[in-house]
Amino acid sequence: MQMSKLAFIPSKTPPANADTINHRLLVQAGFVRQLMAGVYTYTPLGLRVLRKIENIVRQEINLLGAQEILMPALHPKANWLATGGWNDIDVLFKLKSQTNREYALGQSHEEIVTPLAKELIKSYKDLPLSLYQIQWKYRDELRSKSGILRGKEFYMKDMYSFHADQADFEKFYQITKNAYLKIFKKLNLDAKVTEASGGNFSDKISYEFMVLTDAGEDDILYCDACSYCINTEISKVKAGSPCPKCGVALKQAKASEVANVFDLGQKFSKAFNLQFVDQNNQQHYPIMGCYGIGISRIMGVIVEKNHDQNGIIWPKTISPFPAYLISLEGEEERAQKIYDTLLKNNIEVIWDDRQCSAGRKFADYDLIGLPIRLLVSKRNQDQIEWQTRTNKKAELIGSKELINRLKLEK
Amino acid sequence: MQMSKLAFIPSKTPPANADTINHRLLVQAGFVRQLMAGVYTYTPLGLRVLRKIENIVRQEINLLGAQEILMPALHPKANWLATGGWNDIDVLFKLKSQTNREYALGQSHEEIVTPLAKELIKSYKDLPLSLYQIQWKYRDELRSKSGILRGKEFYMKDMYSFHADQADFEKFYQITKNAYLKIFKKLNLDAKVTEASGGNFSDKISYEFMVLTDAGEDDILYCDACSYCINTEISKVKAGSPCPKCGVALKQAKASEVANVFDLGQKFSKAFNLQFVDQNNQQHYPIMGCYGIGISRIMGVIVEKNHDQNGIIWPKTISPFPAYLISLEGEEERAQKIYDTLLKNNIEVIWDDRQCSAGRKFADYDLIGLPIRLLVSKRNQDQIEWQTRTNKKAELIGSKELINRLKLEK
Repeated sequence: MQMSKLAFIPSKTPPANADTINHRLLVQAGFVRQLMAGVYTYTPLGLRVLRKIENIVRQEINLLGAQEILMPALHPKANWLATGGWNDIDVLFKLKSQTNREYALGQSHEEIVTPLAKELIKSYKDLPLSLYQIQWKYRDELRSKSGILRGKEFYMKDMYSFHADQADFEKFYQITKNAYLKIFKKLNLDAKVTEASGGNFSDKISYEFMVLTDAGEDDILYCDACSYCINTEISKVKAGSPCPKCGVALKQAKASEVANVFDLGQKFSKAFNLQFVDQNNQQHYPIMGCYGIGISRIMGVIVEKNHDQNGIIWPKTISPFPAYLISLEGEEERAQKIYDTLLKNNIEVIWDDRQCSAGRKFADYDLIGLPIRLLVSKRNQDQIEWQTRTNKKAELIGSKELINRLKLEK
Repeated sequence: MQMSKLAFIPSKTPPANADTINHRLLVQAGFVRQLMAGVYTYTPLGLRVLRKIENIVRQEINLLGAQEILMPALHPKANWLATGGWNDIDVLFKLKSQTNREYALGQSHEEIVTPLAKELIKSYKDLPLSLYQIQWKYRDELRSKSGILRGKEFYMKDMYSFHADQADFEKFYQITKNAYLKIFKKLNLDAKVTEASGGNFSDKISYEFMVLTDAGEDDILYCDACSYCINTEISKVKAGSPCPKCGVALKQAKASEVANVFDLGQKFSKAFNLQFVDQNNQQHYPIMGCYGIGISRIMGVIVEKNHDQNGIIWPKTISPFPAYLISLEGEEERAQKIYDTLLKNNIEVIWDDRQCSAGRKFADYDLIGLPIRLLVSKRNQDQIEWQTRTNKKAELIGSKELINRLKLEK
C-alpha cells in the first residue's frame, strides 16, 4: 500500500468531538470516520484491523467445533413477540414496511437461531450443537459514546450452543472460556472473567470478560491476588472489602466488556418449543448458552490500552500491515525496489512515498502505529534502518536480512 | 468437513414454498434457510460460496485501484433528505429511535460516500478517486421472491467513483466494464451489457449486466449476432425488429441483473456541495459513477444456470469445497487416511462419513453439486474412484495422483 494512493491519511489535528482516546486516535490516524454517534465507517486501514481481529476469533471458535453461519439483520416481528423481546427490550430497533409489516433489527440472534436449530435437533444424538456468526448488530442505545466502544451498529461474534443437560453446558462453557482467554492473549488483552447479571437474556449469573480501561462503561471489583472479579451491579460488597476467595482487599476500576457468556437455560427453547427426545423417548427442552465477542469494540479497547502521546501502538497480530517503509527525498528509486521485492515475497507493507517532509512521515508513522519502521535514506547507503514503534533503538540491516525478519513477523 | 458433523445436510424433500430453482435447490441441498420472503440465513456451505464470489469480485476491483472501505447500514435521515431520497424512494426502510430520531437503512450508499469523499477531494489532484465496499443492503421490496435473486436483505459490492470531467468518467467506466466481464467469466456467467434507465440514481442511460434466466425479473431485447442488448423498459422497438447495430432480428428473453453501472453526473456532488478546484483555481462539482455487483443474487443466478434434475453443479471457482469423498461401509479407516492426507496437503474436501446408504450419499453428492466425486470402496482395492459431477465416466487413481490432481483444481 502506497501512502500516496491511500485516500484516508492521518490528519494533523484530532477530531473536535472525540470523548475518548480510541475515537480521537482512530479518526486522526485514519482508521474510521464517524457518521453519527455510535455509527462509523471503516477505512481501508480500519477494515484490515477489523478483519484481523475477526480472523483470530474465527480460528479459535472453529476449533470448538462450532459451525459458522450468517443470519440476517432484518427479523420478523413474530420471532421477537414469541420471547417477549418485542415489548421488553428498549434497545430493539423496530421498523415497518410500506405494507405495514413490522420488523426488528437484530440486537442479538437467539430469536433467529432457536427456530433454526429446531429443524436440526430432534434427538439427543443431535446434541450438543453450536452455531456461530460474525455479524453486525443494531442497538438503539440512548448514549452512544466512547468512540467505537459503544455503538448503535457494531460488529460481533455471537455463538449459540444447545445441550441435553446442564452438565454438558457447563463443560462447553469451560472450553469456550479457555478459547476466549486464548483469543485475548493473541490480541494482547488482559481480560478478567467477571460475574455479572444475565440482563435481558437470563435470570442466572452471566460471565463477562472485562478489560480495565477508563473508557469502559462498567465498574468492576477485582482481586489482584486471585482471579476473583465481579460487576458492581451485582456485588454486595464494596471496594476495600476482603475478596471472598482469598481475603485480599478488592479494588474497583472502570472496565469495558469485550466478551460475555450467558447461561440461557430453557428460556428460548421453551419460547420456540424446541424439544428433543432422550434415550427413553422422553421429550426435553435443551439448555442453551450464548457467547459474544465484540469485534469492533475490541478494536477500540486495543487502542485505549496500546498508545502513547504520539499515536497508536498496534499489537503485531492485528496491525493492518507489519511495517511502514519511509523513503526520504532522493531515495524513491531504492525504496521502490525494496517495496517491490517485499511484495514479491508476499510481504505487504505501507510505503510512505509522498512528497512531504521527513518530519510529517515520522509523525504519521507514529500516529498510525505499525510495529516496525523502515527508513531508506542517503545516510544509510545501501542499508535499511529498522526500528520498532516502542523501542527507538535503530539498527541497520541489508535487504536479505529485512526479508527474513519480516517473514518472521507474519 | 465431515458430513457427520455438518449441521445443515441435504433434505430428501424440496421446500414447499419454492417458486424458483435456486430457492428449491439451495434450501434442499442445505446452503440457505429462508427466514421470511427475501431474507435468508446462509449455512456453512452457503457462506463459503458467498465468500468465494465476494473474493473473486474483490480481487478484480482492487486491480482498478479502488479502495475498500465499509460504510454503515444505519444512516441519518439528514443525508437522505439532502438528495430527496427520503421522500422519493419507496423501497427505503425508515425507522425511529426511542428518542424519535429518524434513520434509514442503506439501500445504496451515495448518501454516505459523497459526504465522506468531500473530506478527501479538495483539488483536481485528488481525482479520480474510487471507493468501494462489500456490504448488506436493505430494500423494502413489495414482491420479494425468486429465492435469493430479489431480497429485502442482500449482499452487494458497491463502488463509487469521482472524476474531474465526463471523459475521465467514461474512461473509468470502460475499465470497470472490462473488470466486470472478467469477473463474470471467472464465475462462469455470460453477462450481457444492456442499456437501461438510470432509475432513482440518474436521468441518464445506465448499463446493466444481464444473465438470461427465466427466474429473472427483467425483460431484455438482445441480438445474437452482435453485443447489442437493451432493457424493454427503455426500448422503442420490439422482439423481431432489426438490431440497430447490425440489422439481425432482436430476440426477447427474461434476464436477471447481476451488476450495473450508473453515470450519476453531478446529482450527488451538488446535493452535498462537494467541489474541487481545477488548475485555474475554478470550482467544479465532480462527475460521479456508481457500480454495483449483486453478490448474493449471483449465487442464485449461478444455481439457475448450473444444475440438472439431480441438483446443483457448482463452477469450480466458487464451489464450497473442491471434492466430495464418499466412503462405503467398511472403508471408513482407509477414507480417514485419505482425508487426513489431503488435509495435510491443505486440501479440504467434504468427507461423507455418515452411517447411511451408499444411495443416500450419491444422491446428496449430486444435490450439493461439488465438481469432483471421490469414492472409496472395497471393489476399488487401494485405488480411489474419480468422477466429475457432469461427466459420469469413472477413473481409478492412486492417492499420490489424487493429491496432484486436487492441487491443480485449487
